[in-house]
Amino acid sequence: MNDVSAVREKCPLVHCITNYVTVNDVANAILAIGASPIMSDDINDVEDIVSISQALVINIGTLNERTVASMIAAGKKADELGIPVVLDPVGAGASRYRSSVTDRLLSEVEFAVIRGNLSEISYIAGNGGGTKGVDSSLTEKDADPVKIASSVSQSTGAVVAITGKVDTVCYAGRIARISSGCAEMGLITGTGCMLSGVIGAFAGAADDYFKATATAIAAMGAAGEIAFEKAGARGTGSFHIALIDELSHMIDETVAVRGKLEYAEY
Amino acid sequence: MNDVSAVREKCPLVHCITNYVTVNDVANAILAIGASPIMSDDINDVEDIVSISQALVINIGTLNERTVASMIAAGKKADELGIPVVLDPVGAGASRYRSSVTDRLLSEVEFAVIRGNLSEISYIAGNGGGTKGVDSSLTEKDADPVKIASSVSQSTGAVVAITGKVDTVCYAGRIARISSGCAEMGLITGTGCMLSGVIGAFAGAADDYFKATATAIAAMGAAGEIAFEKAGARGTGSFHIALIDELSHMIDETVAVRGKLEYAEY
Amino acid sequence: MNDVSAVREKCPLVHCITNYVTVNDVANAILAIGASPIMSDDINDVEDIVSISQALVINIGTLNERTVASMIAAGKKADELGIPVVLDPVGAGASRYRSSVTDRLLSEVEFAVIRGNLSEISYIAGNGGGTKGVDSSLTEKDADPVKIASSVSQSTGAVVAITGKVDTVCYAGRIARISSGCAEMGLITGTGCMLSGVIGAFAGAADDYFKATATAIAAMGAAGEIAFEKAGARGTGSFHIALIDELSHMIDETVAVRGKLEYAEY
Repeated sequence: MNDVSAVREKCPLVHCITNYVTVNDVANAILAIGASPIMSDDINDVEDIVSISQALVINIGTLNERTVASMIAAGKKADELGIPVVLDPVGAGASRYRSSVTDRLLSEVEFAVIRGNLSEISYIAGNGGGTKGVDSSLTEKDADPVKIASSVSQSTGAVVAITGKVDTVCYAGRIARISSGCAEMGLITGTGCMLSGVIGAFAGAADDYFKATATAIAAMGAAGEIAFEKAGARGTGSFHIALIDELSHMIDETVAVRGKLEYAEY
Repeated sequence: MNDVSAVREKCPLVHCITNYVTVNDVANAILAIGASPIMSDDINDVEDIVSISQALVINIGTLNERTVASMIAAGKKADELGIPVVLDPVGAGASRYRSSVTDRLLSEVEFAVIRGNLSEISYIAGNGGGTKGVDSSLTEKDADPVKIASSVSQSTGAVVAITGKVDTVCYAGRIARISSGCAEMGLITGTGCMLSGVIGAFAGAADDYFKATATAIAAMGAAGEIAFEKAGARGTGSFHIALIDELSHMIDETVAVRGKLEYAEY
Repeated sequence: MNDVSAVREKCPLVHCITNYVTVNDVANAILAIGASPIMSDDINDVEDIVSISQALVINIGTLNERTVASMIAAGKKADELGIPVVLDPVGAGASRYRSSVTDRLLSEVEFAVIRGNLSEISYIAGNGGGTKGVDSSLTEKDADPVKIASSVSQSTGAVVAITGKVDTVCYAGRIARISSGCAEMGLITGTGCMLSGVIGAFAGAADDYFKATATAIAAMGAAGEIAFEKAGARGTGSFHIALIDELSHMIDETVAVRGKLEYAEY
């Protein structure tokens, strides 16, 4: 079971250590898809909270020394307990601090899923390949999403998702490509963060993190497309609200019909 | 005067030290009911801010050492000045840190109102009764809301509200039961936090904190029910916005007709 | 080029160190007007982030020692690189801490634009005039917005905007008065913060910060008026969403027709 109905049935508790910009949307997206969010980022609190959770989502959007220490403590505890950990390396490669924190998280925590944009995952790929810092001289061939995602998946052992116009998920020779969603989702802050939270919800109810990640992305894409059809013309505020509405209505049939998800192998 | 019109007339300034997940909704809910919110959580700032406020709301949803120190300093200053303090002990009993901070707040600050769910207030009841930590072996009889709320009210001297399917408010032999609201309010993050903020607004305009708390809960329940009737079918994003809309339209007549508030004694 | 189309064409990256109450709305407002927001407040991160940005917005709404240090470091770096810095001194004059941080920012960072309400800018005016602390005994004549804004502009070298029923912008003998917008915008938390973010977006695409500031205020006022006409009757939640909608639809023609902007000299 790696689908929406599994999330709604099991209602996993998803512990998020996430940025303060989009945290409200992340919580509401997790609730809308049928899971239960809990936000806690203090070193005194995170180990207890992750111990009662079914998934942990770490998002470095507004990181600082205090919360980075909490991310590592929570991640290690989750690994110890077999709880899946999702990483959203917001801005990895864009600043030295975000890059070094990403490196540190990857060296200290074992992630079940890593989701980022092409630039963020390329940073990890370069790093994993032995170079330091983000390689801004990447050619198009080097930046092939399947190549990068599968390379990062191999080096980290995680399911790796690169989201963009078409989304790519790679793990252990398997590949998923998702073409639902629309460019206008980038006009709302936090659609990536919400997606990482929703992946946490699916992972917390799943037995196969690869399928769970692909399905979560397809569900988010379908919700975005439907929301844009219904409310996009009214403006980005209404589109934002409609996106949460459509997540709350999401069922497996909608993912099947509107998710535009295809599996392959590499 | 402990009603909506008193809030709208006096427009009390409500100082909130609250979590970053739902803080925007708390501010908008306080504005919608006719009061004025001010958020400030730094130790250098809170005493000055609480001194110009008519109520203080302390919510431990995303606590840390820095903000806990501010909560205590602000709470003590409010007590000194006779400004009502509302406690929302989010997650008390769910982690050792949240529990110990709740204990510390209760020992250092005198609260006018404590509002939580059955589990959170049960934690305080157990603690007040001499046990340590949350008692997870509570029987249904032990968990009777009236018994627990009146016990915590007696031990703390505060008006105590337990919110759930039916809400209970106890203080000094008086009891209020409120059955407005709907289960779907739990599908929006922060309805509890917003309610605590709205209680702060009522307390800041009131001469009777018991009636103010009961009326605030009835107003929130009525707003939730009406919002769900109007927008629930559209999804949880639209329901969330409609809830703020209905708070902004709230008048005493609506509380009287839709609030489902009954008073009794025990 | 200091208009909406310049923002949409150049899509400046706007680095915000802002409060956690309204940060989501600030990000969505910046996106809606056609720019790109990035929030980063850690001392290890801000210099790298501001170096890739076209504007920096500093808002002291929920300040603390950690973020104040970041504001100063980011501000100095921006000054060094010639990137415009916008200050929103939320609550200057209302507490000693907010006042002293405002003083410190003004002494260490050179601002391109300062935007606040009459009380906040009056605090700066008093301070700039040699007095300490907020002067609560200001007479109406002393509190003339044009006099205060031009005085603060002269002492700081910044474009200074005082927003209220009518908005005033002063710089180097030039004055702009904007009478669009509506009082109900004060019933949504964060319209001031959003405006400061939008000013950052305009400044990041502009060659004339005075015109950019005036146009940003006119665009926000027009969006508020249109949003209130369309959604105000539904309540403050819907009005809030409609405001973002109208920002996302904003074009130069709408600013010209609905912005109610007039220029003069003093």
